[in-house]
This record gives sequence, structure tokens and C-alpha cells, in this order.
Amino acid sequence: MFESAEIGHKLTKTEYDESVPQLRAELLDTQFELLEQRRFAVVVLINGIDGAGKGETVNLLNEWMDPRHIETWALDEPTCEEAERARMWRFWRALPPKGKIGVLFGNWYTEPIRGRVGREVKKAELDQQLDAINRFEAMLAHEGVLLIKLWFHLSKKGQHERLRMLEKDPRTRWRVTERDWHYYEQYDRYRAVAEHVLRRTSTGLAPWQIVDGADPAYRALYVGRTLRETLRSRLDAEREHWRPRLSSPPLPPALGSENLLNTLVLDQPLDKKTYREQLETLQGRLAMLVRDVRFAERSLVLVFEGGDAAGKGGAIRRVTAALDARRYRIVPIAAPTDEEAAQPYLWRFWRRAPPRGQVVIFDRSWYGRVLVERVEGFCSEADWMRAYSEINDFEEQLVEAGSVVVKFWLSVSKDEQLARFKAREAQPHKRFKITEEDWRNREKWDDYERAVCDMVDRTSSEKAPWTLVEADNKYYARIKVLRTLCERLEQALE
Amino acid sequence: MFESAEIGHKLTKTEYDESVPQLRAELLDTQFELLEQRRFAVVVLINGIDGAGKGETVNLLNEWMDPRHIETWALDEPTCEEAERARMWRFWRALPPKGKIGVLFGNWYTEPIRGRVGREVKKAELDQQLDAINRFEAMLAHEGVLLIKLWFHLSKKGQHERLRMLEKDPRTRWRVTERDWHYYEQYDRYRAVAEHVLRRTSTGLAPWQIVDGADPAYRALYVGRTLRETLRSRLDAEREHWRPRLSSPPLPPALGSENLLNTLVLDQPLDKKTYREQLETLQGRLAMLVRDVRFAERSLVLVFEGGDAAGKGGAIRRVTAALDARRYRIVPIAAPTDEEAAQPYLWRFWRRAPPRGQVVIFDRSWYGRVLVERVEGFCSEADWMRAYSEINDFEEQLVEAGSVVVKFWLSVSKDEQLARFKAREAQPHKRFKITEEDWRNREKWDDYERAVCDMVDRTSSEKAPWTLVEADNKYYARIKVLRTLCERLEQALE
Repeated sequence: MFESAEIGHKLTKTEYDESVPQLRAELLDTQFELLEQRRFAVVVLINGIDGAGKGETVNLLNEWMDPRHIETWALDEPTCEEAERARMWRFWRALPPKGKIGVLFGNWYTEPIRGRVGREVKKAELDQQLDAINRFEAMLAHEGVLLIKLWFHLSKKGQHERLRMLEKDPRTRWRVTERDWHYYEQYDRYRAVAEHVLRRTSTGLAPWQIVDGADPAYRALYVGRTLRETLRSRLDAEREHWRPRLSSPPLPPALGSENLLNTLVLDQPLDKKTYREQLETLQGRLAMLVRDVRFAERSLVLVFEGGDAAGKGGAIRRVTAALDARRYRIVPIAAPTDEEAAQPYLWRFWRRAPPRGQVVIFDRSWYGRVLVERVEGFCSEADWMRAYSEINDFEEQLVEAGSVVVKFWLSVSKDEQLARFKAREAQPHKRFKITEEDWRNREKWDDYERAVCDMVDRTSSEKAPWTLVEADNKYYARIKVLRTLCERLEQALE
Repeated sequence: MFESAEIGHKLTKTEYDESVPQLRAELLDTQFELLEQRRFAVVVLINGIDGAGKGETVNLLNEWMDPRHIETWALDEPTCEEAERARMWRFWRALPPKGKIGVLFGNWYTEPIRGRVGREVKKAELDQQLDAINRFEAMLAHEGVLLIKLWFHLSKKGQHERLRMLEKDPRTRWRVTERDWHYYEQYDRYRAVAEHVLRRTSTGLAPWQIVDGADPAYRALYVGRTLRETLRSRLDAEREHWRPRLSSPPLPPALGSENLLNTLVLDQPLDKKTYREQLETLQGRLAMLVRDVRFAERSLVLVFEGGDAAGKGGAIRRVTAALDARRYRIVPIAAPTDEEAAQPYLWRFWRRAPPRGQVVIFDRSWYGRVLVERVEGFCSEADWMRAYSEINDFEEQLVEAGSVVVKFWLSVSKDEQLARFKAREAQPHKRFKITEEDWRNREKWDDYERAVCDMVDRTSSEKAPWTLVEADNKYYARIKVLRTLCERLEQALE
């Protein structure tokens, strides 16, 4: 894989000087068009061998292009706020919006490679991490992000020469430390691990580009041209409204009339008196659980989904009544802000990932992708089909970082919904108003039912299972929500 | 000040039960209207004596109102990311957008009071801090934020009773620690400091409300009603497009024709060869300064302002060429995003405040308020008049936190601007296009000149002075920028 990059390509000064002016002008043009189109973001990953010119090349690109629209991130040690959240949180924070370029030194490849070279990570674990990376990058690519992955290479001989040269010159001697020689000794292992990583993660959607780093002029031109070509071809494609192709077999039609929802008995009995008693007990139990010292190291992510008037708001209030207001945040999902709309759809949820000891409650959530966006045709079939596994990956990462993820689907019957709509319309308070949209959604009842069943089938995982809540009786629904929550938390804290 | 709140008001259960339902309904209505209007944000500050029911009352409010649109913050110890920035950064992070309510436990009063009670802060220092708080709150109020400041009070006797009661009951004994008794012993001092603080910061725009915290029913109703009244009267006023009144005497007309700008000799000589030599030296000097270990504890905030085609972009590129791309961010100021537009105008700049060791370069800045917004009438005279001192406060806080703030006004003559416009129009690259707006701005040359002179007069402080850059000769301008920058940094690091 690295053979061509170990040739030690060189350029003469004349060749370099002749090529640069035009390259710079073209790079600026593509960058300007990127900014004007605002149809996709560019993420440049910078990895490779120490001393192969990573920093120098990026600095040069910033000189050649307009640095006002490039953000360069050095993601080394996580800050305390980053360390409290899922591993990928910091990279989501660094994603550039549409129209901009983000350059990531220290990215999702850094830790896996370092860990495997240092033997803290087993081969099988590494491969698992690489699979996760492939899925993550495929998601970015399908969301429109243009990924440019650059590996700066240097042969063992080249590395040796570089270190010797630096040591020889009294002005640069200080730059060579023991650690550099230690790394040099690990060169073969590092190269082998890197080769494996690059092979496994060089995909059609996000291939690696290997840069021969021996000669500053050569590597600069190589990287500049790679950027220009990649950007140019994507910009041209965008003008013809290109989308990454993703063929997915359609879902098989439902067979038989029974499904997860219509086999539920939605009107479960529970009288007001019993409700009040149980509510108090369960709220007390929940309050204790969240104050438990063991919860200080965990966090809680609650998802409430359900049809209009299914009682999500009421259920959420019965949960928060048990919590200290300083401990939780509720995130009501409405239309995305323009900063959110300039990012992959999961970004707005990632940014609300809780730190340790905190509770985040999503009133509607990322499942909008496979519910309303699917039913209303706001995204293509391919988009919502891939969303199932993207969502599973997202939740898995939350769980791995210590979050307890609890998801509720509140199910009301068509009759009960109608009764609630009418009751609301009779209310003088406009805060309970029923909109045209609510009536329109109701007409698509069967489509939503189908979407919900598919959603539950495809995203109810062992670590983040769905709980279907029979919600025609509000009392019953709220108690079921609270009880499930307590049980899941107890399980997790044990 | 606290006399009325030490009476020990009590409500019977009947009084309470009779009042709550209507109060809840009205609170919900005001909250809904707040959300629908989306014209202002509400910030509720929660301070007071321990045990006076702060937490309980806020939890209750969250039950009574719709908790989805209330964000409650417990700002205790700063996180590492907060500790790296100016003291107020964390509070800016917590500000709610228009339409929402933010509840801040642990706010800008916490440290000043604590510090003075513990005698780490001298009386004069405290008063300085309180003046700064008054200016900050006035700014929030003028930006439309509705501030509700609640002090939960408890008499010394009440505090004593409370602690004894808790200790008596075996189920609550654990809640009373030695620290509580220690605080109790400091009660008189704490009360005296608090009284001073509240007196100094109870302003017409943001008065304190003292809550007698002895009786849970009384304080809940009192706080609920305060919130309802304050919100209701503001909502009604907003419907008539109310703005906080702020009368400011108009600026005196300019006397004589000489001003800061037209007395500059804009076309300073510097030939290309000398430029090249000096550029290299200065860039080397700057590179060393930013790599200096002492800079790791500081940060750099650069502001570039200037007319169209004054050469801001070119000057910025000569600065960044000396820096490692991982060290700096450039923030080009265009129209605010909708998240930014829902906040006070300084919010979008606060969010970009650099952590230690970093450089942030603003290509146009908060000075837009007193330049384009003034000249184009995007804000009222009262708004831009108050902006001068708000901006001075902002920069002072950056400087106090270790930032070096360097501000450049790049000045070109009317003739030189015309020449540059024409040169750009002749360029085939559309990235250099001249827009209608550029020509329109040019027509308002004199207004802008006046605005710039006022700006420099009123915001050139010792700690954050303006540097006027004669920019008809680009070479000269860039060298002056780099030299000034190096000198300011050297001064700061000494």
C-alpha cells in the first residue's frame, strides 16, 4: 500500500514554481464555489508518519486558500467536557457546516492506531473499531460530507535520514527527542498497523490518499492537486444535483394484518386512586436512583415518541417532577435551526449529549428520520433505510459511554386520539390548539403505523430497547413509563 | 432590606390550594405567549440563604409550567473549558434564546458574595464587581432580556429552627453537616454582605425581589405570582412594541473639518523589496512569540475593521502565514445565524472567545454595531450609543482573563478604494466581485468616517487600543499590522 509513497518523489524548484500560481488560483476558485453553493462540507483528515510534513502542508494550504473558511483542529487529549461524553462527541463538535472546510489533525484514526501499536488494543478489537469507523464515514458521506483522507508517509530510511539531519544541525538538534527515536524503533510495527488500518478503511465513499512526504515541494503539490480535483469533481456533480448513490432493497410488504401496534390492548385499566399511590412511590424511587452516587458516573437519555395527543408531555412532566431541575434538560424537537440544518441530521442530537450525572429528555427525537421524514417524503427511501443502523450506532456509542438509553413509544387508538383532539379544540386556552397539521397526520395513520413497526423492529436493541406504552389510559401510561425507567436504571446501576 | 422577608409569612393550606390552579393556568398561558412571540428571553436568578427553599421552588415552577421550555443551570465550579476563558463566558453560554426561560442557580452574584463573606475580596473590589454586574445587567435588559432576580431569605432564627428540626428527625439528620453550622455562624456577616450587594444591584431595569423562604406554600405562591406579573406586563408591553427606554444625549456635531482619519497620510512609502525583507523578519518574530511558553497561558484576540477593499483579507493572510493552523481560528462576520439572532448582539462574539494558547482573528467584529448598524439605521441611536461602553466592558473582560486584544482600522482613501473596485471588476474571478452594496456603502463615506472617528475615540482604551493603519499602500499596511502585533505581544509577555 505504501510502496509508491516510499519512492521518494522529488520536484525541482522550477517545476514547483511553475505549477503553484495556477494551482492556488484554482484552489481559491473551488473554495469560493463551495462557499457559494453551500451544499456540502469538506472534512480533511490528516494522519501519517511523524516528520512527513503534515503540519507544514496544512499551513501551506491555509496560505494558498482563504483561511477564513478553513477550521483546523488539533484534537489531542480530550478536554474535561469531552472526556465526560461518548468518544465521538468531540469530533461531531468539530464538523464544519456546509460550505466550509474542516481540517482534523488527531481524529478518529489516532486512538485506534496508537492503541494497536502500543498493544493495548487487540487485533479483533481494532477491527471492530475500524468497522465502526467505516459505518460512521459512510454516514457522513451519505449526509453529503466530502471526506478527504490523507496519509503522509515516509520510508524507514527517509525517517532515519530526517532524524540524522536534524541532529547534525545545531539549530535543529533540540527538535529530536528520545521519543522520536523510540518511535523510529517502532517504525515497522507502526507501518504494519497503519497498512492494515488503511486497507480496512479505504472505501469507495471515502478512500485514503497516500502522500509521499519526503520532499516538501512534491507533497505540497500532490496534496493541493488532490484537493483541487476532489473538490472540483464534486462541485460539478453538485451542480447536477448529485447525491451519493445508495441502493437499498425496499422493505418487504407487511404480511398479514397483525402488527406490533394493533395487537396491543391500548386501554389498560388503572383507577385514579391506585395511580396516585403508585405515582408517588415510583417518583420517590426514581428520585433516589438519580441521587445515587453510582449515577454520578452515568447519565440518562430518555426518548419520548408517539402520535399527536398521545400524552408525551404529560408523561414527561411526571418524570421531571421526580427530578431536581438542575439535573435535567428537556429537548423539544421542532424545525432545526440553520446551524443544525447545515450539518448531518444526527448533529443536533449529538450536541445535546449529557455530561455525567445528567438527564436529557428528548420530546421527539432522531426517530423523526424514520417516522415523519419517511412518511412525508422529506428524505429519500435510501436515506431513512440507512438511518436505522446509523441510529443504532449512535445509541450504542451513548451506551458505551455510560448513558442509560430508555425509549418510549406512546400508542393511542384512533378513537382516543379523536376524542382528545375534540377535547382540546373545546379548550379556551390556545396553548392546546389543534392545528391543520395534526388533522393531516391523522389521515396518514396507516403509514405511520407501518413506520413505527419497522422502527421498533429495527432499532430495539438489547442495550437500548423500545418500550411500547399502551396510552389510551393516561394513568396507566405514566405508571408504565415511570416503572420501566426505574427498572432500567436499577439494572444499570447494579 | 430584608425586614419584610423575616416576618415569617405563612399561608394556610386552604389559601394555597385555592390559589394554585388558577396561577398554574396563567403561568402556562404566559409561557406559551412568550414562546409564540419569541421577542425576548427570560433569565431568572436564584440566590439567597441556604435552606430558604431555592431548589424546591424552582422544581415546583418546573412542575407548574412547561418544563420543555425552561433550562435550569447549576453553575458551580467552572469546567476546564470555562476556567480557560473570561469569567462571564460560562454565563453567556447559559443564556436562553428568545422565547425561553433560563433559571440560573450559581450565577454572577455567587462568587462576589462568597468572596466578600470569606474576606478574600476587599470592599472596594466588591463594589467594582457590582458596578460591572450593573452594567452587564443593563446591557441584557436593553437587549431585551427580562431579568427576574430572586433572593430567598430566612431569618437567623428561622435558619436555626430549620437546622434543629432537621437534626431532630432521624430521617433527615444526615442532611445537616458541620458546614451548615459553620455557615450559620457566619449568618450575620452573610446577611450584611448580601444586603449591601442587593442594594447596589437593585436597579430600575433589574430590581431584586426578596422572597420570605420560611413557609413553602407562601414562597411558592409569592414566586409564582412574581413570575406571572412580570411576564404578563412585559408580554402586554411587547404587543405594543415596547423597548426599554434609554435616553442618551446625541453626540455633539463635529467641530472643524479635521478628524482622526482625514489627518492620516494614507499613502505611506514602502517598496516591494523592503517589504519582503521586513515581512519575513516580522513573521519569524511573530511565530516565535506565539510558540513562547508564556503564550500558552495567554491568548490573542485580533480585530480587523476597515472599509471595503481596504485590504483586511490580505493583512490577515500575512498574519496567519506566520502561525500554525492548529493555533488560530478566523471568524468572518456575516449575517448572524438564527441561533445568534435570538441572543444579545455580543453573544456571537463571546462564543468564539479563545481558550488559552489560541489566536482568534475577527474579520469584522462587534464594532459592526457602531459602524454599519449605526450608519444604516439597523439599530436605534440609543442602542449604538450604549454599545461603546458595552464593548469596552467586553474587551476589558477578555484582557482580564489573559487575552491580548489588538484592533486595527485599515484606512484607504476614496480614490484608492475606487481604483481597487475597478481593478476587481476587471478580474475574471467571481470571488473578487464587487456588489451593489459596496457601491452603496461608498456613497455614505462621510457617515462612515464620522462613525469610525467616534468609535476610535470611545473604544480605544489603554488595555485594548486601536491602531489606525494607513492602507493605501498595501505593503506598508501589512508591515504596520505585523509590527504592531509583535510589539503588543512582546509587551504582554514581558
